[in-house]
Amino acid sequence: MSSPHPGPTATPFAATPEPPYWAVIFSNQRTADDAEGYGAMAARMVELAAGQPGFLGAESSRGADGFGITVSYWTDEAAIAAWKAVAEHRIAQELGRSRWYARFHTRVARVERACTMG
Amino acid sequence: MSSPHPGPTATPFAATPEPPYWAVIFSNQRTADDAEGYGAMAARMVELAAGQPGFLGAESSRGADGFGITVSYWTDEAAIAAWKAVAEHRIAQELGRSRWYARFHTRVARVERACTMG
Repeated sequence: MSSPHPGPTATPFAATPEPPYWAVIFSNQRTADDAEGYGAMAARMVELAAGQPGFLGAESSRGADGFGITVSYWTDEAAIAAWKAVAEHRIAQELGRSRWYARFHTRVARVERACTMG
Repeated sequence: MSSPHPGPTATPFAATPEPPYWAVIFSNQRTADDAEGYGAMAARMVELAAGQPGFLGAESSRGADGFGITVSYWTDEAAIAAWKAVAEHRIAQELGRSRWYARFHTRVARVERACTMG
């Protein structure tokens, strides 16, 4: 992942500041279609997010069953709204989410507390 | 997963109500140790959560690299606090998180908006 704040070692964990900040929880089921096109699109979206104002980081996981969760972290709601406009425009250009996702849920949440181990 | 509100078909998606409600975002890196013990513990924790007051559902994903994200959804902060007490007591009985997790982050967030496709 191309991050504006790369750590000393690559890690799947996002280095977020003290709360409060915001999270977009994107849970989704992949279709079996177009794995290559999806991979390229997903990589572009991560790059695009990392360049957006207010982006704090993201964490992403997908199991062998095709169910995935991506959580992106943002400074505030305005940053999420701006990202949403950019992302939807880009996805529309790339033939739409229905090509890659059988189903998805998006939840926007305000992170109030956080703790870390390790 | 043993859920108090099973849908007509098994799905990895949580059927949450209209916001606001709360989310616990648990991102974690598995150790390579004790896969069998971990699986049994994880299954017990899901059952335990599903029986807690205020539990709305959970979504979970883990990739081949051992990085996983579990998001559990709750009616309010009091339900999360009660779950935390139960979960920590149970985990302490089971030799501690450090056995199974190299690292983890827990974030507690208030879900403000949600949308669904599919």
